Amino acid sequence: MTETLGSTGEFGFIEAATKSLPQGEDVLVGPGDDAAVVAVPDGRMVITTDLLVEGRHFRQDWSSAYDVGRKAAAQNLADIVAMGARPTSIVVGFGGPADLPTAWALELQQGLGDECELLGVSIVGGDTVQSDKIIVSVTAFGSLDGRSPVLRSGARPGDEVAVAGRLGWAEAGFAVLNRGFRSPRTVVEAHRRPAPPYAEGVRAALAGASSMCDVSDGLLADLTHIAVASEVLIDIRSAALTIPEPLQAVASATGADALTFVLTGGEDHALVATFEPADVPDTWTVIGTVAVGNQTHPSGTVTVDGQPYAGPTGHTHFRS
Amino acid sequence: MTETLGSTGEFGFIEAATKSLPQGEDVLVGPGDDAAVVAVPDGRMVITTDLLVEGRHFRQDWSSAYDVGRKAAAQNLADIVAMGARPTSIVVGFGGPADLPTAWALELQQGLGDECELLGVSIVGGDTVQSDKIIVSVTAFGSLDGRSPVLRSGARPGDEVAVAGRLGWAEAGFAVLNRGFRSPRTVVEAHRRPAPPYAEGVRAALAGASSMCDVSDGLLADLTHIAVASEVLIDIRSAALTIPEPLQAVASATGADALTFVLTGGEDHALVATFEPADVPDTWTVIGTVAVGNQTHPSGTVTVDGQPYAGPTGHTHFRS
Repeated sequence: MTETLGSTGEFGFIEAATKSLPQGEDVLVGPGDDAAVVAVPDGRMVITTDLLVEGRHFRQDWSSAYDVGRKAAAQNLADIVAMGARPTSIVVGFGGPADLPTAWALELQQGLGDECELLGVSIVGGDTVQSDKIIVSVTAFGSLDGRSPVLRSGARPGDEVAVAGRLGWAEAGFAVLNRGFRSPRTVVEAHRRPAPPYAEGVRAALAGASSMCDVSDGLLADLTHIAVASEVLIDIRSAALTIPEPLQAVASATGADALTFVLTGGEDHALVATFEPADVPDTWTVIGTVAVGNQTHPSGTVTVDGQPYAGPTGHTHFRS
Repeated sequence: MTETLGSTGEFGFIEAATKSLPQGEDVLVGPGDDAAVVAVPDGRMVITTDLLVEGRHFRQDWSSAYDVGRKAAAQNLADIVAMGARPTSIVVGFGGPADLPTAWALELQQGLGDECELLGVSIVGGDTVQSDKIIVSVTAFGSLDGRSPVLRSGARPGDEVAVAGRLGWAEAGFAVLNRGFRSPRTVVEAHRRPAPPYAEGVRAALAGASSMCDVSDGLLADLTHIAVASEVLIDIRSAALTIPEPLQAVASATGADALTFVLTGGEDHALVATFEPADVPDTWTVIGTVAVGNQTHPSGTVTVDGQPYAGPTGHTHFRS
């Protein structure tokens, strides 16, 4: 008989899930008490939270439990590095139906743990409840190690806009899966398991990035957050955006526009930041400029080649 | 037309929900960026997380949105105070269907905010997604202000067991609601909106509590956590447990045992702790003793009047 969450029970599952969790030096009290205690050496804790819901953020027939775990951790860790911080720990809320195989939940946990292990991050606590649909709630923590956080509001006219990481891959993978296909494999894998450029967040902060955020809603949507918070106009040069071959292949096969994947696809968790021109790290690609808003294109606007982008500008929850 | 999450949209809702959030002195970066930044004066952050799911942890016909918010905040803040810490901030993940009235979500937010305001706690960030059932995920943070955390593992033979706060009220309220009644009002209100004895956590820590936890699964279940973690035998004296009049009324009306409400009812978020006899604060009630386990009742066991308790010992998720 397959063990399920119902037969294992809440405490049995928690025991199985936590017994082999590696705990880093920063963890003063790990899982198993009312709360965890984590050292915050410089006295400032960076905090972010994301909720993933089955059917909305993942599908069991498209993604394995392990992949869902990797993705849930990755998107939170990307938010921490987008502040210029070093991720240290996460806590996980998990909901699932009583008939969910316990193995599924443990594979999810393994995915979370493996993504965390890339960065030496510890899973320090969590909560497990029963719910009809699978729910994964991750809250991630990071340390600034004495640096200032890199906010969305610091972009200045004259700065260059640069990106690190992939754009449009996850969206192309979604388009493929949505049509019932499983290839090109690279974009499908990108949808299942993002690969944020973790090391580039601290690198950008050390290089003096004036603003930064991770690309979770789409390049244009997330740059708009920077343009609004910084009260500037941002212009992207489309020629600076390379369109990788797999994205061109998907665009041809699905009748989509490959540039739209790059400009509006989220969930790759690339990083986008602004720098004074001399400060851009050589691991980053310059794709545009920051200017003062004008009458045609006011501050808070993002243009592509000097014009508003005509296509959709990224997804938003609730609206369909 | 009633505004719904679908018509308001994710960003519209977030703007409405965060525009008037009071932010305490500890909040260095509040809502609106990739992550929040919170000051942790003594370099150690206390962290806990809880997930509430509609139908499992609350019902819209039993609890108002405002009550759900109060309860979601309260149960997390209780975990922070159960470590002997001072709650400082929370983040909130929220999921709801597109046709949920925006007013419902804002009332939930108001409930969260009002519970937090009791303790000067700030809501520093969150995430909002679409889901069929309403989901509220709260992660709460606290500061030890230089003290050691009070763990579950520190109870010592010779200590006294003491409680602060209400026991069995929420469970009696649940029993009433479950039968379709709405009174006694005091227990129904206790189910809807717990009133944890927040000030008693730090008081117990300062008094030298050797172990502490909050009563979320039921007194016997949570004391068992202490007995197991501390490797001791705990005995409760039933005569020391007062049975309040409303609980007796519910027990009479439903054919239940009022003592069972007190011993096994969770969700009032009372605090239970162990102290050396001279250290028990006068705001706490002594209800039992800590001893070395023996052959009949080994360490890790909780007895009532020297005997294993014959009734159910508290709820567990997944098992029904």
